[in-house]
Amino acid sequence: MKKVGILMGSASDRPVVEKALETLREYGVEFEAHVYSAHRTPEEARDFAVKARERGFGVLICAAGMAAHLAGAVAANTTLPVIGIPCKGPVLDGMDALLSTVQMPSGIPVATVAINGAQNAALLAVEILAVTEPELEAKLDAARRAGAEKVLRADEELNGEI
Amino acid sequence: MKKVGILMGSASDRPVVEKALETLREYGVEFEAHVYSAHRTPEEARDFAVKARERGFGVLICAAGMAAHLAGAVAANTTLPVIGIPCKGPVLDGMDALLSTVQMPSGIPVATVAINGAQNAALLAVEILAVTEPELEAKLDAARRAGAEKVLRADEELNGEI
Amino acid sequence: MKKVGILMGSASDRPVVEKALETLREYGVEFEAHVYSAHRTPEEARDFAVKARERGFGVLICAAGMAAHLAGAVAANTTLPVIGIPCKGPVLDGMDALLSTVQMPSGIPVATVAINGAQNAALLAVEILAVTEPELEAKLDAARRAGAEKVLRADEELNGEI
Amino acid sequence: MKKVGILMGSASDRPVVEKALETLREYGVEFEAHVYSAHRTPEEARDFAVKARERGFGVLICAAGMAAHLAGAVAANTTLPVIGIPCKGPVLDGMDALLSTVQMPSGIPVATVAINGAQNAALLAVEILAVTEPELEAKLDAARRAGAEKVLRADEELNGEI
Amino acid sequence: MKKVGILMGSASDRPVVEKALETLREYGVEFEAHVYSAHRTPEEARDFAVKARERGFGVLICAAGMAAHLAGAVAANTTLPVIGIPCKGPVLDGMDALLSTVQMPSGIPVATVAINGAQNAALLAVEILAVTEPELEAKLDAARRAGAEKVLRADEELNGEI
Amino acid sequence: MKKVGILMGSASDRPVVEKALETLREYGVEFEAHVYSAHRTPEEARDFAVKARERGFGVLICAAGMAAHLAGAVAANTTLPVIGIPCKGPVLDGMDALLSTVQMPSGIPVATVAINGAQNAALLAVEILAVTEPELEAKLDAARRAGAEKVLRADEELNGEI
Amino acid sequence: MKKVGILMGSASDRPVVEKALETLREYGVEFEAHVYSAHRTPEEARDFAVKARERGFGVLICAAGMAAHLAGAVAANTTLPVIGIPCKGPVLDGMDALLSTVQMPSGIPVATVAINGAQNAALLAVEILAVTEPELEAKLDAARRAGAEKVLRADEELNGEI
Amino acid sequence: MKKVGILMGSASDRPVVEKALETLREYGVEFEAHVYSAHRTPEEARDFAVKARERGFGVLICAAGMAAHLAGAVAANTTLPVIGIPCKGPVLDGMDALLSTVQMPSGIPVATVAINGAQNAALLAVEILAVTEPELEAKLDAARRAGAEKVLRADEELNGEI
Repeated sequence: MKKVGILMGSASDRPVVEKALETLREYGVEFEAHVYSAHRTPEEARDFAVKARERGFGVLICAAGMAAHLAGAVAANTTLPVIGIPCKGPVLDGMDALLSTVQMPSGIPVATVAINGAQNAALLAVEILAVTEPELEAKLDAARRAGAEKVLRADEELNGEI
Repeated sequence: MKKVGILMGSASDRPVVEKALETLREYGVEFEAHVYSAHRTPEEARDFAVKARERGFGVLICAAGMAAHLAGAVAANTTLPVIGIPCKGPVLDGMDALLSTVQMPSGIPVATVAINGAQNAALLAVEILAVTEPELEAKLDAARRAGAEKVLRADEELNGEI
Repeated sequence: MKKVGILMGSASDRPVVEKALETLREYGVEFEAHVYSAHRTPEEARDFAVKARERGFGVLICAAGMAAHLAGAVAANTTLPVIGIPCKGPVLDGMDALLSTVQMPSGIPVATVAINGAQNAALLAVEILAVTEPELEAKLDAARRAGAEKVLRADEELNGEI
Repeated sequence: MKKVGILMGSASDRPVVEKALETLREYGVEFEAHVYSAHRTPEEARDFAVKARERGFGVLICAAGMAAHLAGAVAANTTLPVIGIPCKGPVLDGMDALLSTVQMPSGIPVATVAINGAQNAALLAVEILAVTEPELEAKLDAARRAGAEKVLRADEELNGEI
Repeated sequence: MKKVGILMGSASDRPVVEKALETLREYGVEFEAHVYSAHRTPEEARDFAVKARERGFGVLICAAGMAAHLAGAVAANTTLPVIGIPCKGPVLDGMDALLSTVQMPSGIPVATVAINGAQNAALLAVEILAVTEPELEAKLDAARRAGAEKVLRADEELNGEI
Repeated sequence: MKKVGILMGSASDRPVVEKALETLREYGVEFEAHVYSAHRTPEEARDFAVKARERGFGVLICAAGMAAHLAGAVAANTTLPVIGIPCKGPVLDGMDALLSTVQMPSGIPVATVAINGAQNAALLAVEILAVTEPELEAKLDAARRAGAEKVLRADEELNGEI
Repeated sequence: MKKVGILMGSASDRPVVEKALETLREYGVEFEAHVYSAHRTPEEARDFAVKARERGFGVLICAAGMAAHLAGAVAANTTLPVIGIPCKGPVLDGMDALLSTVQMPSGIPVATVAINGAQNAALLAVEILAVTEPELEAKLDAARRAGAEKVLRADEELNGEI
Repeated sequence: MKKVGILMGSASDRPVVEKALETLREYGVEFEAHVYSAHRTPEEARDFAVKARERGFGVLICAAGMAAHLAGAVAANTTLPVIGIPCKGPVLDGMDALLSTVQMPSGIPVATVAINGAQNAALLAVEILAVTEPELEAKLDAARRAGAEKVLRADEELNGEI
């Protein structure tokens, strides 16, 4: 099965990204994670993107805050699907990162998830791999059922109390 | 090869979506397009989502404006990757649709592209299918090269003129 | 008298919603509350909406955050008046939920109250029932008088101090 | 059957409000419309609100732009349900009117619809009256079916063309 | 000398308004302060406005948060200059109150100061009275000089330290 | 009677400001208008402000767009009341000018009106002068009545037509 | 004297950038202009940045819209001062480009000017070169005087007319 | 070598500015820092700007919050490059200061960095001086390498842990 590559623009994005790593582990998807900055280590980010497909990656996830260029810079150097996680920075609640990630020009798409939406980034990566991997599809279905059951238990709990 | 499903929430979204259809045709990717509204025809949207995988779809694209729920409503009913195109509506320049599409809760991702970014939505769908379809990958690479050449021609033109 | 149905998209919305339950109890309006997610339990949310009128509900209140689709998803499946409470999420101060709730397309209205405005959602529900229930109207009038008196007592207190 | 009262803050809001009048006529709901400004004719707005219930109104709709106070000013003087239509003004695309209408303090709710959402305001008013008027409910159901059919015809048309 | 009237929409605005009272005391300007809500005690707010000029007021200051209608509601009932203080509420950092206060329609101005800008509201009131009161002008000039000196002392302090 | 000084930051603001000049003429208030830029002619703007009171001005109005510093720069050099008109510029619909005008630091107030709100700026200036000029007060009252009558005529017209 | 390099992300940015070229010509500053996209021709943009200093450039100007990464991508590859022009795109009035350009992480600054502020970008470049080029300083001073005179002529014209 | 001048609009901006002072010390660039307010000490701010070039300054940095006029006011009085740091104030997360700093009119540029981006302001000042100072260029290059190494160490650390 293809691997997932996860890049974060700064070590400070790691607490957000952790949830994505966790989710990939739950699905048994192999991944490789790096701290590579679009601005401070542009060569490393570029090299990772350029070689990603031949190194067996199927999807790349990029997390960055502020003027979040990482996902776009990676997408510019690969035709693998690139998922962007806009991270909340010290001001503006992540709106800067959201617009910097999602408003990509025609020709170079970035699949953007919610601000700090690392779990969904990982799930989206799994969904992409699952297009041709039936066992991942089965796990996704099971997780959806589990998610629904959790909501229904919360509903029961609520109705037990009020 | 898997097909791409394209839903738009209203006939008024069609001019935006047209660019996605065109792009899929260029890549020779089979697709099916529908006008299904999350609010006016919730059953049709749901049914399409529920049966999409067994009907041979690999990716779904949903375009909607204002309180753009279509992508989320479809994503809630399938584990296929769902791409959302937030459409510019009569006010707020598409910011309402962007936030309604991208800010999905944990568990149900939507891969969001730029406001009115229909071409990128189609390219992202192709990239997703290309993970396991080498000939699509080759076409994507060629398109990237063509895109670069177009920029370089514009550069030459600029330098011929100034 | 008709009942009020209250749905919240996640157990995490409960602290906000609590104020609505309290208010309905004060007015002696019968209600039923559920945790049903538009995305994680779309069937339950839909079923509740579809059967709400025949089960004796007169108004539905839906609280959700982020890409807050719950009110719209419920409104798509009933012609009962649906009140939406946009809940403040982890980022953007509820602006995402407000736009996702209020910017509904023509044909499917959602009566939106302020971000986290659960008390007003309940009062609006009572006002709707009171259109044909004189004793609720009397209670609403009394509450308005009490609200005014509370302001005037604060005014007296201020003028006792300064 | 109760009547619907419609106030607009300025004659310039009339093109937006027209859609609400049309919709109420379609449903055969009696209404009365006025140009009353919260700021230029505060007494008339207040008097209308104060006497609305005894004059047979069941719901009030208020449309205003910019610092849109009309719905709130009316709601402050009645316990009838008040629906607010934030109107797009010369700048800010109606965001000023939306926040001025929806962000009401606890105790005085305004049921806010989308920016310029006059048709939905009228439908919401009909839904409120329909809580106890079965023939309105039947008309609402028919309109929903018609709305769905219109979407499905657009879908057929799309599929006839592509 | 004319008095200054200060209204706040809720007792919760008092901590913000306190700074205005303090400033007026510093300038020896007589004032009267009230908690009057545009929505919960519309009559009191209106009566205060209507009688303000004949009761010897020269300027009115109104502080309110969220859909901050108080300044506009007061301005609608007097031709005295009305100063609005938009107060930061539980969400949106006061942007809702700012737009609700400043975006008044033609004919009814509100002199708006910064979000939570109570000291400036009081200073503006003093400046307005000082147009025809030379001793207030002298105090304003002295305060400006004191403000400048405070900045210059901070400058000295900075340069003593670095 | 004191005069009103009107500064605009650029000749391009003149169409907006024209409405203020017109309004002052209607009230018979003497005024002087200048194009003085806070950035391109800082000395002229400053000199005007410094000498304004001794030259017989009672209120100053400043109109500027984008990073609208003019009102603040003038207010920094006088203790006369300064009214700021934030002008809509080529982008952002005047939000930049609004925040640059209204968010003044403590000590230096600017009385801000709506984006492009030139008529209200002039009316506010008249209200300020009217604090001690009864004949202006009488004209303001008359204009309010005329404004109310205009609304009521629009109401009659509406009711003659529908 | 050092040269100025001007990059634009797309041929569609050229009408905005034209004003910068014009301004540099007025100052007699040598420049080189290119259409290089951070996403479509990342190598060309990078190479230009890497070699810019040794090729005699003293300042680089980068213009881009939407998720405007060009200035940041160039700044990541040179320690020359990089000026960013955020260009207004099809939606959001350039707010996306502004945040993508200005919100750079620590370590890699971009000197950002106003949305579409091409003339100021060129002037800033001239100011930077003028730090050690007295004749440019003289030209800048002359232009400031000319700018002031233009304002004063507009003032005279205004006063000739009103 | 030219000096850097650093102005802050208020002593409260000092914690933000401290990072700029630190950075300049690291680069061995001589600087002078002042607390000068555009509004409370306009003369001192102006005088500093007017004499800056002859006093040996090569770049000026101005930090201010809210209606942040300092950078613009300084830029209006010098043709030295002026760098603006928009500071986060008590509300709006610095968006007010960003727009007040960056949206300068044509003719008077301000080189704006990120909200609270004091380190980048200092680095930009060093980059500007480094255009003609090779030893500063060498230090900037070294810092870039150090920055890259820090990222790569974080990457190693991440990969040592996961």
